[in-house]
Amino acid sequence: MTDFKGRIIDADLVEDVKELIEQKRADELERVIDQLRPADLADLIEHLGADERLFLFKLLEPEGAGEVFVEIEHPIQERILKDLDTKSISEIVEELDSDDAADLVGDLPEDRAKAVIRSLGDEVSIELEKLLPYPDDTAGGIMALEFVAVRADETVQDAIDSIRESGKEVENLYYIWVTDDHGRLLGVISVKDLVIESPDAKISDVMNREVISVNAGADQEEVVQLVKRYDLVNIPVVDDRNRMVGRITYDDIIDVMEDEADEDMSLMAGVIAQEITEESSLKISRARLPWLVGALFGGVFAALVINQFEASLEKMIALSFFFPVIMAMGGNTGTQAATVVVRGLATGDISLVNIGKRLCMELRVALINGLVCGPLLGVIVGLWLGDYRLGIIVTLSLTLIILISGLIGAAVPLALKRFNVDPALAAGPFVTTSNDILSLFIYLGLVTIFLRMSG
Amino acid sequence: MTDFKGRIIDADLVEDVKELIEQKRADELERVIDQLRPADLADLIEHLGADERLFLFKLLEPEGAGEVFVEIEHPIQERILKDLDTKSISEIVEELDSDDAADLVGDLPEDRAKAVIRSLGDEVSIELEKLLPYPDDTAGGIMALEFVAVRADETVQDAIDSIRESGKEVENLYYIWVTDDHGRLLGVISVKDLVIESPDAKISDVMNREVISVNAGADQEEVVQLVKRYDLVNIPVVDDRNRMVGRITYDDIIDVMEDEADEDMSLMAGVIAQEITEESSLKISRARLPWLVGALFGGVFAALVINQFEASLEKMIALSFFFPVIMAMGGNTGTQAATVVVRGLATGDISLVNIGKRLCMELRVALINGLVCGPLLGVIVGLWLGDYRLGIIVTLSLTLIILISGLIGAAVPLALKRFNVDPALAAGPFVTTSNDILSLFIYLGLVTIFLRMSG
Repeated sequence: MTDFKGRIIDADLVEDVKELIEQKRADELERVIDQLRPADLADLIEHLGADERLFLFKLLEPEGAGEVFVEIEHPIQERILKDLDTKSISEIVEELDSDDAADLVGDLPEDRAKAVIRSLGDEVSIELEKLLPYPDDTAGGIMALEFVAVRADETVQDAIDSIRESGKEVENLYYIWVTDDHGRLLGVISVKDLVIESPDAKISDVMNREVISVNAGADQEEVVQLVKRYDLVNIPVVDDRNRMVGRITYDDIIDVMEDEADEDMSLMAGVIAQEITEESSLKISRARLPWLVGALFGGVFAALVINQFEASLEKMIALSFFFPVIMAMGGNTGTQAATVVVRGLATGDISLVNIGKRLCMELRVALINGLVCGPLLGVIVGLWLGDYRLGIIVTLSLTLIILISGLIGAAVPLALKRFNVDPALAAGPFVTTSNDILSLFIYLGLVTIFLRMSG
Repeated sequence: MTDFKGRIIDADLVEDVKELIEQKRADELERVIDQLRPADLADLIEHLGADERLFLFKLLEPEGAGEVFVEIEHPIQERILKDLDTKSISEIVEELDSDDAADLVGDLPEDRAKAVIRSLGDEVSIELEKLLPYPDDTAGGIMALEFVAVRADETVQDAIDSIRESGKEVENLYYIWVTDDHGRLLGVISVKDLVIESPDAKISDVMNREVISVNAGADQEEVVQLVKRYDLVNIPVVDDRNRMVGRITYDDIIDVMEDEADEDMSLMAGVIAQEITEESSLKISRARLPWLVGALFGGVFAALVINQFEASLEKMIALSFFFPVIMAMGGNTGTQAATVVVRGLATGDISLVNIGKRLCMELRVALINGLVCGPLLGVIVGLWLGDYRLGIIVTLSLTLIILISGLIGAAVPLALKRFNVDPALAAGPFVTTSNDILSLFIYLGLVTIFLRMSG
């Protein structure tokens, strides 16, 4: 018998499990399930076909299904939900933490969501109704309702009793919060400090009053910035009157960070973040096509621009040889500057405070790079075409192109940020296409002036 | 008098502080320092000029300087270190956690590092000598030596006593580890569970034996994958004999995640990760130029390719109008596929287990997108040039280009990963340039065959 304990999901294991499923050997599969951690089981499920998945998923006991379910990638979660009946979904929801339960129910089609809520116990459905109104990308949308709070006039022993009483269900319980009679947040104390302090000490004497909290309506990006900046493992969420309503833990923050990085990278490449685990080629294709068709029309526009310079091209067909290099230089320079600014804005290392400094820096960098690349290409073109004056024109063009592309690359994301548009758009295909067109225009324009002047 | 308490660093605050520094009003500045958190002070320091920075930094008392220092961005840390004498650096090192101390000393030039180590107390220099041998990007390189461990035959009360005794200096103390007489890792227990369990209970009865640990020599990427996969807040680091030697906390993991995302994005854009906070334009320029010069020579090679088809271009100059669109379509298709694969490999959502599935998927997507974009451009070109046969040739070319670019975009990062090269390279300028050249070759090749056949 194979031992699955602690095994990493590899091709062999997936094959073994597929075989067991085909042979419907439920007892053997349950042994596999017992030996794998929820995250690994989720990974295994992602590697199976749709029917196999459902077979394995139904073997998870009601208590195990939720833990595994939250670890499964989003597109595959959706597929599984489609195949489950309301009762199974309700069972999963009942055992999830409030934030995961709300995410799951929030993702269901409206009538299914209503049916699930109706079939839930009172306690859970009340929690859901508290959480569902918050948009997904706000602090309220990612917070959980499970936390332990004590009043400032209680003692350390009282706090320890609270943990004994209600702390068992709270995962990741490292801090408890201190509130006044109205539930308003006053301070925080770590479980470690509760252990260290004397049991008779008053909470108000040992708590840390400099507690950092976030409003339930705050954008999730703001939450991430706070958590990263102050290295928080937990952040309390408060309402407009500073009453504590929930808390967000570091693992949710890590998920949000990944989502945001996915989103940025997706915008920059013209894809959607969900693609990695999406299983329908049609859906992926539909997500990518708008960018491609956009780039196609951008390219057709570039063709119209070149068309304007047909006379120059007829005089010297070799001018067209250098379209690729001109476009590549403009495109790469712009992407370099834009990527640094987009990333800096995302991590908070570049703020709108020092816009001027950043733009000056990028201008200097572009100038240096232009003064290196421009003459380099100029010499190559001059020697190739045997015309040193044309070489000088190419030098001028490329230097100018690099200077302008670098500036645009740095300025566009800063401008987008100021107008609250995701700056990552600036490193994407549309701006690159515009840079291409501008570069061609500068190159052909300057060369045409030169050709006219030299007769 | 201005109140700086809890203020976010904005342009006004920076101006106020600059003025205070210029007027050398140390007392007033010390009030500012008292009111800001270390991370905010670090942010403030990053916004100052080099001399201003040093003035403010020297005002931090020895105990505060370290806390602020670790929050400052790397390039600016280096500049500050250059300006400090050995004694000041030693004072900072003494108060840092072991992992931060090792990072700082590891970054110093060799003779300065030796001087600093000589001037440190025994305890700290012994710690440093344990940590310094580990490469920066391994578990050993990011771990700290501060943790609390108890033996399995001790009681919960013994464990609580250990925390009281040595836990005060350990930040982020949420778990303690259980070892045998030889220091080998046996289990883990949360501080919360210590509070909940009876003081007389034996640790071996209440600990969790399924503890996930990582070898000190493991790559930091592996550590990140484990922490994310199992939602760990702490991961113990063991040596080859499973003896616990250190621990890594979630905040270090968040830093590594950011670094890795920075690195990927940098490789994809042809920049370096340190650029965001680098202050020397020459250094930035030097980092970007190799990519630009590489792209330049790629472009010159593209020119040579086009040169081979000069005869076709002479027959029909309008063929050159479509270079930009052909290149853009090949480039964008490849980047889309490559970005999804690179990101999926980075987050662990795509593994080498399901290579075949991913390639098939990308092939289907590319086929759909090719069958949409190819005919679209074909119709435009056919109408523009009034030659429907040429339109058909362009349709064929573009469909083929999208198919091949999509496949290359997905295959190259997977191949790089298999050979342990960073897959992010595949989404970078060099592969895009190769795709450009291949696209031009396919387009001009097919058109030339057509022109020859049609006489």
